[in-house]
Amino acid sequence: MTNTIAVYPGTFDPFTCGHENIVQRAARLFERVIVAVAASRKEALFTFEERIAIATETLQPLANVEVLGFDCLLMDFVRQHGARILVRGARTVADFEYETQLAVMNRKLYSELETVFLPPAEEHRFLSATVVREIARHGGDVSELVPSAALSRLQQKF
Amino acid sequence: MTNTIAVYPGTFDPFTCGHENIVQRAARLFERVIVAVAASRKEALFTFEERIAIATETLQPLANVEVLGFDCLLMDFVRQHGARILVRGARTVADFEYETQLAVMNRKLYSELETVFLPPAEEHRFLSATVVREIARHGGDVSELVPSAALSRLQQKF
Amino acid sequence: MTNTIAVYPGTFDPFTCGHENIVQRAARLFERVIVAVAASRKEALFTFEERIAIATETLQPLANVEVLGFDCLLMDFVRQHGARILVRGARTVADFEYETQLAVMNRKLYSELETVFLPPAEEHRFLSATVVREIARHGGDVSELVPSAALSRLQQKF
Amino acid sequence: MTNTIAVYPGTFDPFTCGHENIVQRAARLFERVIVAVAASRKEALFTFEERIAIATETLQPLANVEVLGFDCLLMDFVRQHGARILVRGARTVADFEYETQLAVMNRKLYSELETVFLPPAEEHRFLSATVVREIARHGGDVSELVPSAALSRLQQKF
Amino acid sequence: MTNTIAVYPGTFDPFTCGHENIVQRAARLFERVIVAVAASRKEALFTFEERIAIATETLQPLANVEVLGFDCLLMDFVRQHGARILVRGARTVADFEYETQLAVMNRKLYSELETVFLPPAEEHRFLSATVVREIARHGGDVSELVPSAALSRLQQKF
Amino acid sequence: MTNTIAVYPGTFDPFTCGHENIVQRAARLFERVIVAVAASRKEALFTFEERIAIATETLQPLANVEVLGFDCLLMDFVRQHGARILVRGARTVADFEYETQLAVMNRKLYSELETVFLPPAEEHRFLSATVVREIARHGGDVSELVPSAALSRLQQKF
Repeated sequence: MTNTIAVYPGTFDPFTCGHENIVQRAARLFERVIVAVAASRKEALFTFEERIAIATETLQPLANVEVLGFDCLLMDFVRQHGARILVRGARTVADFEYETQLAVMNRKLYSELETVFLPPAEEHRFLSATVVREIARHGGDVSELVPSAALSRLQQKF
Repeated sequence: MTNTIAVYPGTFDPFTCGHENIVQRAARLFERVIVAVAASRKEALFTFEERIAIATETLQPLANVEVLGFDCLLMDFVRQHGARILVRGARTVADFEYETQLAVMNRKLYSELETVFLPPAEEHRFLSATVVREIARHGGDVSELVPSAALSRLQQKF
Repeated sequence: MTNTIAVYPGTFDPFTCGHENIVQRAARLFERVIVAVAASRKEALFTFEERIAIATETLQPLANVEVLGFDCLLMDFVRQHGARILVRGARTVADFEYETQLAVMNRKLYSELETVFLPPAEEHRFLSATVVREIARHGGDVSELVPSAALSRLQQKF
Repeated sequence: MTNTIAVYPGTFDPFTCGHENIVQRAARLFERVIVAVAASRKEALFTFEERIAIATETLQPLANVEVLGFDCLLMDFVRQHGARILVRGARTVADFEYETQLAVMNRKLYSELETVFLPPAEEHRFLSATVVREIARHGGDVSELVPSAALSRLQQKF
Repeated sequence: MTNTIAVYPGTFDPFTCGHENIVQRAARLFERVIVAVAASRKEALFTFEERIAIATETLQPLANVEVLGFDCLLMDFVRQHGARILVRGARTVADFEYETQLAVMNRKLYSELETVFLPPAEEHRFLSATVVREIARHGGDVSELVPSAALSRLQQKF
Repeated sequence: MTNTIAVYPGTFDPFTCGHENIVQRAARLFERVIVAVAASRKEALFTFEERIAIATETLQPLANVEVLGFDCLLMDFVRQHGARILVRGARTVADFEYETQLAVMNRKLYSELETVFLPPAEEHRFLSATVVREIARHGGDVSELVPSAALSRLQQKF
């Protein structure tokens, strides 16, 4: 076994209870987990800084987890941080196909890379940031879907 | 991070280069990997003993890997060996759905369990033990599909 | 058996023969069917009013069917109208996964909800509003794909 | 709306909590639900009589539900009982494709037929009779997966 | 463009209208089409000879089509007949995944091979030999699902 | 067999090694292959003229291949050029479903049409123009993913 530093990348707009669950589990599998928040060019609900802040506040209790933003090729970020593991959630068949495609391309760019898929906890299988934004936008209750750091900010937005 | 002992279960009839690749990669992610060969009730091409022998010979170079047979509920085997990680390959969408189903059921039986999917290396994506048996049965060349311990035994069978 | 008021929601941009077929069949299964036209924020080909008008004209012959627009959380609309059944068409595997995700989320928001999937009639399996718009935009013949109320309006647009 | 008599067919080897949940929900949607136990030619764990008995005992509390065996073309059974609705659960993408295929073929045999898919409750999404048999065979605990009428008979078998 | 001799392999137990449609269309795309009936080891409804006879009678009108049986590795058969094109129907997502797997393995065995998928005609999308056997076994009407050469033999069997 | 003129349509933004491979193989199956570059209304990375130029330069060595732009209903283009075959790559399950939908709609618009799916070469299975643009945008190396005519233009853009 070699060093096991893992990166868990995403847009996290916002960070949900499903994301939190994946990080908690990854933190038990690997020495260190870096949550990598993508700058993203599409118009997001939360700014880059807000998305980083929500994830940071939420994951503070986990000693071997760190939240960082990135605005470059993901594989460059992974390499710069000495990581060689990519953690991805795969909820649906559509996710699985897309993630497999990315895993193959990423290995072409960085041959040391290992991609690891974690199936979602049953209660988060159908939870996505898109659905959270949609419900919150119409005034629905998302208090069981996002951590408190996201909830308070969602309430300010709408 | 807690102890990371992982189990990689299967029928392995026979152990292929795709299986070997998954074990090699798992051995770099986790402290110890136990390859668990299922006794299986369906009529297999190779006996339980042969299937264990092929995997054992093939994986001998890997120091933190061990091959064991089992004839009980998989989760009982995992628990008995102090493991809490299950490694699974997921090549196709059909695999992914079936494996996700198993992951949920297994977590119900053993709540500590973490299932980890490793996508296949590109060159093994469409390799399965079923296809190997089919080609070998008709005298086709499978020398690039299985390790030498399986190849010699396949040649004896047909 | 309790009261069976069903809601069939969509953007209906425009209402197609496939939508019409689903409503006709739902109207034979349930006491009352409310076709709920979403206000939608993305730029649609037809205005909210036009989309409601097309569906209303088309479905006039069905006594237990009513067309209404909505601009709120769907589950709030369903509750307000005393409905507890959601009717959805599921044509493809991609549809099915997405719809299942919505069904789970909706049940979280409204625990009384029952989602019912109707498979499309064979001849409408591959008919979608997107395809209709694409063909009409290029002057193709869509007279067998949409009801007459949509056809005349499509001809005015292009 | 016309009469709504629905048939829910299956092998039910054995009847699980997932099947029970589908019947409970169908019983609230339709006037009458007939659970149709297939005679089946493949070797089943439970006999035809046992499978009927388990479903009958389990569903006794539901006034508008009846359990019957059948050993003919399903569409002939449906017609004989004056039903025109077929209720099916669709848990996975693979299920969905298979069920859609059957729905189309059945409509060819009986043009009045309407097939209705009910998505599984979240907690039963990955529950199947096959998995139940597998766990029970190895002495695992299935008490949360099957109704008591099935549990006692499973304990006698193994 | 090089010579275009194509092989369309299958068990054809029995040959259906869906198979017939694929051959008719392939015969318009390629110089010559060889329908290759697999000997098959699983217990089939029709014997090897019967399955060849049904296909032969049905396809007699097509001048550039020939029916042959084979009992070897498919790629050896393809090579022996100077063909380099394999024609396959792909009706469902499950078919597509399985066929893609075979296409990759076959290209490993015979690098000149080109696999071509033809989508089924809409009316045959959900027609399979398995469904035909199931309906015929219970006395259902399959006259629109199989060619007359299969229909008469099915009526003799049941 | 009738005349076999085939059209391979796409946005080709930009033309990749995967597209090139499909054209090379189609050119060996059919008399003549027309690569049809769609004008496209969504904002593309390359202009219509650039996309046509990249494909034209890349495919120059293939004698029976021609590159043309089109800005009309695809079926009108196909008919105008006396073609009746549409060549499509299908890499993923999601592709397959979408392409099957298009194939059915296209046959409704042009009943003579035959759609042929070619599975991607193994090394291009997970290559898409979207992924190429994403990697190039961040300064990653795409020299093995696109032909030289696309590579030089990508380097000028970024």
